Amino acid sequence: MENFGGKKESAYEKENGVGNGGGMEVKKKWCFKANESISAASGITIRGTLGMLMESRNLNDKRETIPLGHGDPSAFPCFRTSLPAEDAIVDSIRSAKFNSYSPSVGLQPARRPGFPIYESRATFSNLEIRHFDLLPEKGWEVDLDAVKALADENTVAVVMINPGNPCGTVFSYQHMKKVAETARKLGILIISDEVYGHLTFGSNRFIPMGTFGSIAPVLTLGSISKRWLVPGWRIGWITVNDPNGYLKEAKIVDSIIGYANISTDPATFIQAAVPKILEETTEDFFDNTISILRESAEICYNEINEIECIYCPQRPDGSMFVMVKIDTSLLEDIIDDIDFCTKLAKEESVIVLPGVCVGMRNWLRITFAIEPLRLQDGLRRLKDFCQRHAKKL
Amino acid sequence: MENFGGKKESAYEKENGVGNGGGMEVKKKWCFKANESISAASGITIRGTLGMLMESRNLNDKRETIPLGHGDPSAFPCFRTSLPAEDAIVDSIRSAKFNSYSPSVGLQPARRPGFPIYESRATFSNLEIRHFDLLPEKGWEVDLDAVKALADENTVAVVMINPGNPCGTVFSYQHMKKVAETARKLGILIISDEVYGHLTFGSNRFIPMGTFGSIAPVLTLGSISKRWLVPGWRIGWITVNDPNGYLKEAKIVDSIIGYANISTDPATFIQAAVPKILEETTEDFFDNTISILRESAEICYNEINEIECIYCPQRPDGSMFVMVKIDTSLLEDIIDDIDFCTKLAKEESVIVLPGVCVGMRNWLRITFAIEPLRLQDGLRRLKDFCQRHAKKL
Repeated sequence: MENFGGKKESAYEKENGVGNGGGMEVKKKWCFKANESISAASGITIRGTLGMLMESRNLNDKRETIPLGHGDPSAFPCFRTSLPAEDAIVDSIRSAKFNSYSPSVGLQPARRPGFPIYESRATFSNLEIRHFDLLPEKGWEVDLDAVKALADENTVAVVMINPGNPCGTVFSYQHMKKVAETARKLGILIISDEVYGHLTFGSNRFIPMGTFGSIAPVLTLGSISKRWLVPGWRIGWITVNDPNGYLKEAKIVDSIIGYANISTDPATFIQAAVPKILEETTEDFFDNTISILRESAEICYNEINEIECIYCPQRPDGSMFVMVKIDTSLLEDIIDDIDFCTKLAKEESVIVLPGVCVGMRNWLRITFAIEPLRLQDGLRRLKDFCQRHAKKL
Repeated sequence: MENFGGKKESAYEKENGVGNGGGMEVKKKWCFKANESISAASGITIRGTLGMLMESRNLNDKRETIPLGHGDPSAFPCFRTSLPAEDAIVDSIRSAKFNSYSPSVGLQPARRPGFPIYESRATFSNLEIRHFDLLPEKGWEVDLDAVKALADENTVAVVMINPGNPCGTVFSYQHMKKVAETARKLGILIISDEVYGHLTFGSNRFIPMGTFGSIAPVLTLGSISKRWLVPGWRIGWITVNDPNGYLKEAKIVDSIIGYANISTDPATFIQAAVPKILEETTEDFFDNTISILRESAEICYNEINEIECIYCPQRPDGSMFVMVKIDTSLLEDIIDDIDFCTKLAKEESVIVLPGVCVGMRNWLRITFAIEPLRLQDGLRRLKDFCQRHAKKL
C-alpha cells in the first residue's frame, strides 16, 4: 500500500533528495533542534545552583551535610505535616471516588494550583521582566520610586511576595496600601505571592494583599505547601481579588481559566483532600511550627551577626529565609557569593544559596526552616569558615 | 517616604497624567488585557464541548445520564484501580518521607510526567500543526503519502497515538516500521503517545514505537492513567528511544529537562508510589480490565452497526474509544455532529463527543469504557434517537 519510491514527490523531497531516489542511500539531515527559549528561561536557577553546590562537597567529610540552601522543612521530623492532612489524603484515596479526571479549573472545593517560577516562565512566554529593588535599610520594603520609573505602557503587573522569600519580610498595612495605590496609578494589576501566608513570628501580622483589591486588582497565589509543610504535594490556588471587576472585564479571568485548560492538573484525590486538610488541622499544629520557626529565626539572626565578614540587616519576621550580605573586602580569597558557597560546600558540607540566584550578588540566602540543633551546627561551621578565610590584619 | 505627588515623574506618568496631578482625580487606563494565544489555543476543546452537552440535557429527564463522551472508567466500581496501587499511595503518605520537593526531572524511580494536549499546547507555543489523515478503510492506518506531502524543512516531528484514541486502533508491526522509515526520510522525530499501551483486546498486539528507535528517534509518552484506571493521578513519563543519540546530540534531551525545570511537578508522594504500583499489581487486575473492555467494545461495535444512520467502520482493538460515522443524508433534522450530540443529550441524556472536537466533522467519538449494562442502556437510547430522527421513506 505504501511505497517509499512511489509516485508522488513533495517539494521538500525534491530539495532534500529524500523522495524517489532510485534506491540510492539517502543522506539524512535531522530537522529538530533544541528549544532556545528553554535555555534562555533556565539561566541561573536555584535548583541548578544547589545541585552544583551538592557536587562541590568533599565526599571524605564524614559530617552530615547541612542544607541551608532551600526551604524544605518537611525533611525533618519536627516539621512533619499534620495528621489530619495525612488522613485526608488517605481517606481520599481509599474512597476510590477521586481517581477520575478533575475539571480543568480544579475541583470545586479545592480551587486552584499554580507555582510559577516567575522569571523563567515569563522568559519562556516572551514576557519582559523588570526588576525593582527591595530596600534593606527600610526593612526590605518595595522601592516604589523604582517601580514607577520602570513601568511603561507595556507594563501589566507587579509581583509582590509577602511574607517574603528570600528576605523574611512581612509588609506593614501602610506599605501594602502604598503598593496598591502605585499599581492603580500605573494601571497595573498586583500578583501577590502569599504562599508563606500565616508563617509569621515577628511584630508585623500577615495581611493579604486582597485587602486592597478595591484600589487595584489583585491575583493572589496561595498554597498548602508551606503552612502544612508539604511542598511536594503541589497544591495551591489563584484567588481573584477584584471587587470592581476590572480583571473580569478585561477577560483576564477567562485567560486564567483558558490556561488552566491547557495546564497539568494536580492529582484529583489531593484536590479532594483539601477541605479536610484546611478544616481539620488544629491550631496547635500551626503554633508548633511557628514556635520552632521563631526560635530558629532568632538563632539564625543572632548567630550570623556574631560572625565577621557577613551581615544580616533585618531580623526575619516570616517565611523561612533571611538574606545575608557578604563583605568580600574582609575576606582573603573569596571572589564573590558563588565562590563563597562553593568553598563552603567543599570545606564544611554546608549548603547555602548564592544571592545571585535571587538577583543579589554577594549576598547569601539562608533558610532557618531546619531543626534548631542542626541549624546551630551549620552556623558554627559557617563561622569557622569565615574565620578561616578572613583577611589577617 | 513615598510620595505620590512627589518629585519624579516618568515618561509614562506624563503621557497618562498619572503622576503629579495636583490632587485631581486620575482617569485610570488599565494596561492588562486578555492573552490571545490562550483563546487561540482553546478553540474547540473536548472539555468545553462536553460541558456544553451536559448543559444541553433536559433536567426533567429522570433517567441516569450515560456518559459516552470521555473515557474515564474510574467512575465505575467495576473499573476500580488495583489495591496495591491504592496501598502504594497510602504507604507513601504515611511514611512522611515524600512530602518534600521532588527533583524537577522526577524522582529517580518514577521518571517522568507529561500530558500535552497537543494542538492547544502547540498553538500556545506558536508551533504550527499540520494534520494527516488516518484511513478508516485501512483500519485507521496513517496516510503516509499525506505525511510526506505535509512535511517541509520546518517540520520536526510526527505525533502517533497507539493504541489509538479516538479510533481504537492498534497498529501492526509492519505499519509502524513504515512510519519510522518515513520519519527517517523526512529527518523528523516521532512522538509516540502510548498512554493506552497494553489496553488491547483484538488481534494486533501492542508494540512500543521505541522498537524502531534505531530507524528514527522516538519520544514515547507513557502513563499509569489508563492501565491502572486512575486518570486523575496525573502521573506519566517521557522515554527517549534513540540508540543513535541524535536527540542527545541535537540537545533535545536538554530541552526536555529544561522544560521539566519550569513545569509543575506531579506530587512527590505519588511519584514515590510508582515502583510499588508497577511491581505489585497482579496480572488478574489487568486481565479483568481487558476482559470487561473486550466485552464492552464488542457490544459497542455490534449494537452501533445495528443502528441505521450511523456506521462504525472498524472494530476497536484497543484504547477506550471508537469512531462512528453519521450519515446525515439519512437523518431528517440533524445538520451535523454538534447538532446530533446536542439533541441526543437533550432528548436521551446520553453524552457523546462530536467528531469535530477530534478533527472529524460528522463523526462521533464513543467510549465503551463504562459498565457494560449502562453501555447497553446508552446504545439503546442512541438507537431510539436515530430511529426517531431518521428520514421517513
